[in-house]
Order: sequence, then structure tokens, then C-alpha cells
Amino acid sequence: MKIAISGKGGVGKTLLASLLCRTCVESGYSVLAIDADPNANLAATLGFPHPESIIPISEMADLIEERTGARPGQYSPYFKLNPKVDDLPEKYSLRHNGIKLMVMGRIKKGGTGCYCPENALLEALVAHLLLKVNEVVILDMEAGIEHLARGTARAVDKLIIVVEPSRRSIETASRIAELAKDVGLQNIAVVGNKIRSEQEKDFLISNMPNFEFLGFIPYDQAIVEADLANLSLLDSSQQVIAEVRNIYHALLPAQKIIERS
Amino acid sequence: MKIAISGKGGVGKTLLASLLCRTCVESGYSVLAIDADPNANLAATLGFPHPESIIPISEMADLIEERTGARPGQYSPYFKLNPKVDDLPEKYSLRHNGIKLMVMGRIKKGGTGCYCPENALLEALVAHLLLKVNEVVILDMEAGIEHLARGTARAVDKLIIVVEPSRRSIETASRIAELAKDVGLQNIAVVGNKIRSEQEKDFLISNMPNFEFLGFIPYDQAIVEADLANLSLLDSSQQVIAEVRNIYHALLPAQKIIERS
Repeated sequence: MKIAISGKGGVGKTLLASLLCRTCVESGYSVLAIDADPNANLAATLGFPHPESIIPISEMADLIEERTGARPGQYSPYFKLNPKVDDLPEKYSLRHNGIKLMVMGRIKKGGTGCYCPENALLEALVAHLLLKVNEVVILDMEAGIEHLARGTARAVDKLIIVVEPSRRSIETASRIAELAKDVGLQNIAVVGNKIRSEQEKDFLISNMPNFEFLGFIPYDQAIVEADLANLSLLDSSQQVIAEVRNIYHALLPAQKIIERS
Repeated sequence: MKIAISGKGGVGKTLLASLLCRTCVESGYSVLAIDADPNANLAATLGFPHPESIIPISEMADLIEERTGARPGQYSPYFKLNPKVDDLPEKYSLRHNGIKLMVMGRIKKGGTGCYCPENALLEALVAHLLLKVNEVVILDMEAGIEHLARGTARAVDKLIIVVEPSRRSIETASRIAELAKDVGLQNIAVVGNKIRSEQEKDFLISNMPNFEFLGFIPYDQAIVEADLANLSLLDSSQQVIAEVRNIYHALLPAQKIIERS
């Protein structure tokens, strides 16, 4: 199953992606995590040692040009349609706690161009990777909507949109869902995050009547405090971990349906 | 003076941009606000009636092609270096409460491509607009770092990076500052937002020793509640308004220095 996690900046995409990766590994899945956000934070959140030392795919200019026909930082009128990608996860991922991680982009030199070639490669990677039954790919997307205008994640089986109790995160979710449908991505679900009360949960439900909710993750000040104290976020809140487990179980039936179809 | 407001998603860029626009208008400035985020929210936050009816520049494909040589949604190997832009603010902005607003991008159909041509036009707009002494341009940038890889805001006089008390927002700020320097943007300052305690303020100061702070905006639950109740955020917190006024005054001396040089 290929899952992309999307949403407005700051809603908690990376923490959900990280906890979901860990839950999948604990349940026996082989997990490939992909940080698709140039402002990459997934490695650090997953506890990879020396995350700054990971060479992102975007810095492998020769590789991207070889596979996509376009050199990073240069506008290109076309990209190869079916670049070879099956060897990339083994060659270009790091492994920690049973999770394979690929990082698509990171800082590049300012003014050197967009991330279009990287997104073309990522799109191909997601589309052409063949997964075994016990394999799962979890993509942590960049904030906002441009990746959907680009269609980067169009080949995932499930798009999870994270929202928090705020109108702007709901607005972003609606835009993401609309764009996702344009690229043929129908299997969309929402996770409510940072929920402080039943009232906030109801706020999300009543303002998003056309969305399927996978779960509601409580707000926990312990996560904020762990961050300020530079401790691992993954272990800082048992109630958050428990709710991500529920979300994992809510995802699995969907996976079986997809695999049979 | 041309000011860009940048930072991790969710830190409060748009609210700061909006309050700064209003403070500038109240102080006699002529304000051009530009929403540079495809996931646009500035119009709504500024209280423009029917923000969804504003046609963003990105949907004026003929205009963008005429001025940049590239059609939105199509990868183009080159852009015109000096497109004509001086007429754009008058022709393509809306006005409300004394603020002229341009919206660069919004939803485009999913899978139709990146925002590179729009960013090329925006870069030219920021670089080539000639301002009178009493004119100010305030750009609300997209979350994250890609706009700096593109160099979209390289011609601003001041880059404000908004941070909240979290390691990841500081990390994003460091990346933004690094990229900004690559494109020759040296005049950078930071605003701390959502500050709940002296301890959180100290956390930011001690973790960002190389940054100049323009101010620290307190966290105010009233803003969250105004959002949930669908009320204007701009008038929901007097203490936030007061601190943005201080930030406005901290910005002005910098402006005078730039204009004399």
C-alpha cells in the first residue's frame, strides 16, 4: 500500500507519518518512508542519527538527469514518462529501526531553481514501484498544494489529509481534495490532529461533512515540551501513540480491498 | 520598502502580514499586499469580501505567457529576464480598507504543473516595481523553502522569518536564512510568534543567536476562538495588535537607512 500524508503546514504531517511508519514496522510491515518535503524533517523525527548527513535524491543531479531527462535547477520542457525507479529504494535509502528512508529534497542553493525534476522522479517512483503484500510506502508530502498541482502523489493508494481545528487547515484540506480528484486520486481520508475537546472534534466533523475521518489525535502538551527539551517526539505521548494505532487499523481494511481489486 | 514574510507552515505568516498591512495603512502608507502562496489565505484574513472571486495572476495564462514567455502549467526552458510589470498592480489588484491586494496563485487543476511561471512573474514584479517613499509592498510567501530555491523574493529589502517556539520552525528559519543569503538577501529579521511564556521567548533567543529579533507576539487563545467562531482574526487580540505595531516601528528605521543608501 502506498500512502501519502498531506495538509497545511504545521498540522502535524511528519509526526503522523513517523508514528505510522513505526506502527507498521511493529506490525510486521516492511516500510519505505519518503520525505517528499524539500524542507525535510522526517529523518530527524524518526530518530535517524545524523539526519543532516543523508544525501537527498535532489542532490544527485546526474541520477535525476539520467532517469528523468531533466537536470535539477534547470527548467526542462519534458520529462521521460517511465524512468527506471525499482532500484532506487535499495540504492538510495538509509535504514534505522527497521524503516527504510529516502529523502527527495533538502536545501539546495538559493536561486538555483524549482523542485520540478525531483517531483517528476518522485512521481515516477510512486507510480512504478511494485510492492509486495507486506510492504508499505509512506510519503510525507510538502505543506500546501503545489505537489498536487504537479501530481506528484497521484499514484498512491490512499491520501491522508491532516487537519487541526482551524478554518484555514480545513480550507487547505478542501483544496487538496479537489486537486487530488483532478489527478484521479479518489481514496482520501482525513485525520484530525491537536484535538483539545469534543467541541473541537465536532467543529471538524461539522465543517467537513464530505470527508471520511480515520481518527482524531488529541492535543498533548507533552509533545510541545519534548520538542523544547530536544527529546524524541515519538515516545512523548502515549495517548497520541494509541490513536495512531487506531488509525493504522482503520487503514488496513482499505488496503485489503485495494489488493483484491 | 519591499518586505517578504516567510517561515514554516502554520507559524502565523498570514496573520502577521495582514496586521502589518493594516498598521502601515493606518500610518499613512500606500500598501500593496501580495499573496505569493498558491494555498492563498491573505484575502480572507484581510477581510476582502468574496475572496474566492479574486482571479489570481496564475489563472491569467495569456498574461503570464505575454510577460514571461512561459505558459502556466508548461515546463519552459527559459523565461524573459525583464518582463514589463509596472502596470500589473493597478490592473490586477483589488482594494479593500485601503489595501491593494494581488493574488499570485490559487488552486489550479490538479496535475497541470508547477508554479514556476507564476514565480518568475512574481520575482520580476518584486524586482522591477519602483516604489515611492510612502509605498510599501508586503509579500506573504508560501510555507517552507522552495520559493527561495526559486529566488522568488530575492529583490525584497527585508525578509521577515516568522518562528514559533518549536525546533522545526527554527530549523526552517535557518534553512530560509541560508538560502536567502545565496540569492544575496542579507537583510533578514525574525519575529517570534505564539509566545506563551518568558521561557519560550528565551528558548527562541538562545537557539537563534545569529538572528535579529524584531519582536515577540504573544500566544492568544482569543485568536483560535475567533477562528473557530468564524470572526475576523485581525481584531481578536489587542495584545497581538500592539506587538505588531512595535514590529512596524522596528521596521521603519531600517527602511530609512535603505532609502538613503
